[in-house]
Amino acid sequence: MFVTMNRFRIRPEFWEDFEERFRSRESLLAEVPGFVRNMVLRPVEGAGEHHVVMTIWESREAFRSWTQSEAFRKAHARAGRTPKEWFAAPSQLEAFESVTDEMSAKSAQA
Amino acid sequence: MFVTMNRFRIRPEFWEDFEERFRSRESLLAEVPGFVRNMVLRPVEGAGEHHVVMTIWESREAFRSWTQSEAFRKAHARAGRTPKEWFAAPSQLEAFESVTDEMSAKSAQA
Repeated sequence: MFVTMNRFRIRPEFWEDFEERFRSRESLLAEVPGFVRNMVLRPVEGAGEHHVVMTIWESREAFRSWTQSEAFRKAHARAGRTPKEWFAAPSQLEAFESVTDEMSAKSAQA
Repeated sequence: MFVTMNRFRIRPEFWEDFEERFRSRESLLAEVPGFVRNMVLRPVEGAGEHHVVMTIWESREAFRSWTQSEAFRKAHARAGRTPKEWFAAPSQLEAFESVTDEMSAKSAQA
């Protein structure tokens, strides 16, 4: 698996607005080849200051193909409309390859 | 969903040893109630310096129950045996609640 994590440092007074953007967005990922799962994550008090948009891909190649797609261009055009004042710092993109990947017995059966 | 991310800054010469610990470990999570998925992630060159051990839980309560279990105690006893020289910095535990959670059409059908 290939995992990307976009870390956003959002000013606390804009958390609700930032999260609502994701809740109300049109989904562009579900049908993308190689897409596995996307989560928008809010930090728990005392255990982090960044929101993280995490995406799991079947492979690095699947992620690369997506970055060259029309769906990606659309998603980024939308992201570009986010007010700059919401951000306390520039976002950081991290990327990872899985060393191990374990699912619950329940999920593995499904 | 509730997501924990343990971020480890490992000295590059010990990456292989660190990863092998996880590859060869006995699984303690698969049967834990509320456990969804665990991934050990290696940073991609130029896109991060931390290994991340990410765990997805059905709820914060499921995570809490696990931290009070015998399986958790065992896992931590094992982690305590990791040589200190592998670490370039102390590990950081981050925790998150999901704002949105989207799966591929394929996974959602399963």
